[in-house]
Amino acid sequence: MKVHERIDALRREMEKEGIDIYIVPTADYHHSEYVGEYFKVRQFLTGFTGSAGTAVITKDKAGLWTDGRYFIQADRQLSGSGICLYRMGEPGVDTIEEFVESELPRKGVIGFDGRTVGIKDGRIYEEIARKKEGRLEYSYDLGGRVWTERPEMPKAKAFRLDVKYAGEPAASKLDRIRKKMMEKGVDVHIISSLDDVAWALNIRGGDVAYCPLVLSYAVIWTDHVDLYADRGKFSEDILQEFAENNIRVLPYGQIYEDVRGISGKPVILLDPERTSYALYKDIPENVKIVEEQNPSVLMKSEKNDVEAENIRKAHLKDGIAHTRFMYWLKKNIGKIPMTEISASDKLEEFRAELEGYLGASFAPISAFADHGAVIHYSATEETDVKLEKGKLFLTDTGGHYWEGTTDITRTVALGEVSRKEKEHFTLTARAMLRLANTVFLHGCTGANLDCIAREIFWKEKLNFNHGTGHGVGYLTNVHEAPINFRWKEGNYPVQPLEKNMVISDEPGIYIEDSHGIRLENLLLVQEDEKNEYGQFMRFEILTYVPIDLDALLPEMMTAEEREMLNEYHRKVYELIGPHLNEEERVWLKECTRPV
Amino acid sequence: MKVHERIDALRREMEKEGIDIYIVPTADYHHSEYVGEYFKVRQFLTGFTGSAGTAVITKDKAGLWTDGRYFIQADRQLSGSGICLYRMGEPGVDTIEEFVESELPRKGVIGFDGRTVGIKDGRIYEEIARKKEGRLEYSYDLGGRVWTERPEMPKAKAFRLDVKYAGEPAASKLDRIRKKMMEKGVDVHIISSLDDVAWALNIRGGDVAYCPLVLSYAVIWTDHVDLYADRGKFSEDILQEFAENNIRVLPYGQIYEDVRGISGKPVILLDPERTSYALYKDIPENVKIVEEQNPSVLMKSEKNDVEAENIRKAHLKDGIAHTRFMYWLKKNIGKIPMTEISASDKLEEFRAELEGYLGASFAPISAFADHGAVIHYSATEETDVKLEKGKLFLTDTGGHYWEGTTDITRTVALGEVSRKEKEHFTLTARAMLRLANTVFLHGCTGANLDCIAREIFWKEKLNFNHGTGHGVGYLTNVHEAPINFRWKEGNYPVQPLEKNMVISDEPGIYIEDSHGIRLENLLLVQEDEKNEYGQFMRFEILTYVPIDLDALLPEMMTAEEREMLNEYHRKVYELIGPHLNEEERVWLKECTRPV
Repeated sequence: MKVHERIDALRREMEKEGIDIYIVPTADYHHSEYVGEYFKVRQFLTGFTGSAGTAVITKDKAGLWTDGRYFIQADRQLSGSGICLYRMGEPGVDTIEEFVESELPRKGVIGFDGRTVGIKDGRIYEEIARKKEGRLEYSYDLGGRVWTERPEMPKAKAFRLDVKYAGEPAASKLDRIRKKMMEKGVDVHIISSLDDVAWALNIRGGDVAYCPLVLSYAVIWTDHVDLYADRGKFSEDILQEFAENNIRVLPYGQIYEDVRGISGKPVILLDPERTSYALYKDIPENVKIVEEQNPSVLMKSEKNDVEAENIRKAHLKDGIAHTRFMYWLKKNIGKIPMTEISASDKLEEFRAELEGYLGASFAPISAFADHGAVIHYSATEETDVKLEKGKLFLTDTGGHYWEGTTDITRTVALGEVSRKEKEHFTLTARAMLRLANTVFLHGCTGANLDCIAREIFWKEKLNFNHGTGHGVGYLTNVHEAPINFRWKEGNYPVQPLEKNMVISDEPGIYIEDSHGIRLENLLLVQEDEKNEYGQFMRFEILTYVPIDLDALLPEMMTAEEREMLNEYHRKVYELIGPHLNEEERVWLKECTRPV
Repeated sequence: MKVHERIDALRREMEKEGIDIYIVPTADYHHSEYVGEYFKVRQFLTGFTGSAGTAVITKDKAGLWTDGRYFIQADRQLSGSGICLYRMGEPGVDTIEEFVESELPRKGVIGFDGRTVGIKDGRIYEEIARKKEGRLEYSYDLGGRVWTERPEMPKAKAFRLDVKYAGEPAASKLDRIRKKMMEKGVDVHIISSLDDVAWALNIRGGDVAYCPLVLSYAVIWTDHVDLYADRGKFSEDILQEFAENNIRVLPYGQIYEDVRGISGKPVILLDPERTSYALYKDIPENVKIVEEQNPSVLMKSEKNDVEAENIRKAHLKDGIAHTRFMYWLKKNIGKIPMTEISASDKLEEFRAELEGYLGASFAPISAFADHGAVIHYSATEETDVKLEKGKLFLTDTGGHYWEGTTDITRTVALGEVSRKEKEHFTLTARAMLRLANTVFLHGCTGANLDCIAREIFWKEKLNFNHGTGHGVGYLTNVHEAPINFRWKEGNYPVQPLEKNMVISDEPGIYIEDSHGIRLENLLLVQEDEKNEYGQFMRFEILTYVPIDLDALLPEMMTAEEREMLNEYHRKVYELIGPHLNEEERVWLKECTRPV
């Protein structure tokens, strides 16, 4: 079935149910950023494979909204489909809400699968329907009806995360959550977000590609926990531990029914950013709801000291693999055949050799030359190209280890590259180093600090259309709330950076049809001196892999920036060198030389 | 009457009215930052002369809350008074609300003069009273009862601001405000803030020290304006122009009565940040109120092109006066006697010589050596000291001209100063230059950009306890909303920087009992290149006065920073040089030499 046939089929279902506008976000029932194959309804309907985007279909129009990371890719993939691309955040482009409001006829019906839409968005659609004297219809999964060969719901086995990795037993985490519940005067806390469930219970799984999580909901009562998940995923050991912690396993889909049965007495805590509209609407109207961020969001973002020490180990391993990959690349380019996909597989090979490696933490980006300008490019058999000398090659990859999650981007020169590419590479390196080496007072947010990196681009009248960084989870989601580096922030107040939080530092520059550059290290927030001015904070760099001097123009850097680079490279050699063979080490010495 | 006697007298009045806690903010009835002599009740009661602070008196406790600018000064002035200093924003220090809540007995009464308290604060006190089953009493000015020798209400003449200065006739401004009122569906707009009234009607006055404003309220109806002010302040010419614009003048105090008489029909727009609790409570309960920022707040912040061109002229004049003062200072130090006050008077003399100078725009700060560390130090006859070689001397002063308002801080070395002072001076100069020379995308707020300056201090584990900058009005208030450079921002969303806004750039460093340094230029927001990344913005520097090279260590600066300094000094010489005599010009050439 072609894309336009799928849209036609969807329109027939819309007509059957009396729906005027149907909205399909990229979402599972848990507000996950990445979704399992079963949930890729929006991708099925539109053909656009990016990890973010919302399709809106009316009787005669079809639109896809996505963000700056995906403009180029979406433009390509939607070409000829009859679906119009709406570039989110660009001046003059209607938002989804504006589009829905202007397209909805009087007394019209807005439809969506209420399990895939969050509370906030659901309320926005409610308000639009109200203005037009219309209504919502959120009980039907019309995309699912059209998708005849839909994959099965995932059934991967769950596994335990030992306290030597997690640093804190589940019982203690549940205690802390219950303490917060008491402070807020609530009796029951519904957790829909998979990483919050995984963190709280020290379990992991394999239900979502790249995110080792278990499809589940946890309902935390004062004396027990109801875990809604497929019981078959848990071993006897896990079930035994659940029993010790008063955790009952109930069927995954039963939560809607159970929520409908909650009587008027208990007060419920739920996170409006992380709960589906359908689940929220199923709570009886006379039940009091406290809408706040899940307490576990902040708790899991502040890694404990065991996790921090593990994370350092994971990054050392990852740095060894990546450095060896870089050497392999530099040595063999032009000598043995390699493509974006084969090179990416090679990097995966280096990682797979390491003890404790569990798999990739997101879809690897392996982008040669102009493909680098497609921010979240994912090489396919059709797009895959041969790597050759004379261009830049960008990889943005990461791994899950028992000791934590990595995320690293390196752009390397294959042979000699142009002056312009080197200038852009140098800006990127300067921005990354400057942010990593900043010092700030406790209380600062990523919105305060983003410009420390971005100013370097702005002075050249350049910019990059993504945040400078995101929080990183521990063997959960590689993009983890509640911190980030973004100068334009939607949700205030923003979370200040706290000790032991992990955040990425990844400025870049993307020149369509020419080249793309990004450099990314992960940073661990640390306390520095405390004095009469307050608690100073700084970043400990976690990622140690060379920054390619073949693409760098040291004369474009300040003396201070060169010093930052030299200090970084000194540590790369010190940490990674001892784990390489003689040939690799000689090369590493040379490519970490002071500039 | 000594301070403790005043507090005792206040307590007797509190007892008489059955009030348990009495709150005295620093405020007139208009939320003005600076208040006329008549309104300085808090100063009278506590003896603290700073321009910001709130006194809270209970039966047995008395506290004064003030911010970082005033910690040292308040500590000194409250010494021995029995009034306890509460350092706002310091860790572990109770806020006013926390203090009031913990001190208020059950069924207790919180009292204040409702005309001097804003709506937001009034509501906070309401909530505290409610929790304790108590109540508010906001009808009595108890401070006024104690203050037997209180000054009279100000009676200064008002004057017109010609359109050649204002750039836009009052009729056009009123049209724009009414258009906004229509958009918001309101029929009447009550303006309590003096600068908003002055801007909208193109009138100025002299009722508040340093702020050329008229004590007044404006009530804008769709077809006319009711201006509540003392009629005797207006000339026949002004009254004639008022008549042409359908502006009626009514007695100042009558607004409360008129507001009580508004019937249920019209919808009222008022600014909860700029309206008194008493006026708000006087509006009948059945009248619909829209609470939003006065539309004029943003309008007057975005200067028009006539104002911008005038402001450049005002700053050129001010730069000439200040540069001549600097030469006088450097030439005569150690030769003729000078003190903080006499030097400040001399600077005022240089300004007064200029055509179109109307007076100081705020209380001049003239601080020698360790006095510089008192951020808003104001030299009095008791504190005045002789200026001598070997220390730094800080002046923070400004003027009102027909062409606009200036605000400039310079710190100069008198003779040779210490290495540490030079290091701190250099950090300050670097921070100021770096912020002035930044480039940013449209949409940025001061919260995004503050760290561009502050990072230089943070890297040395230093900080300054004030914002890096504030908006500046046109012949109104030197501190003008809604923009600022502050990394910790209370009220979201913050206003992005728009074309033709004026903002100060004034980092500093304050070492108690040793020295204080601040450098301040005003900046005009300008549009730079617009390209595929968006509209880039930059700052045009308005202030041109040398940065004292005698206090500077060029070797501590990056090459880029030295270039910024040299470029700045090149312009200082080019702009100011032609207006000096030969002797002054030779000196200026030398002190603007490249480093």
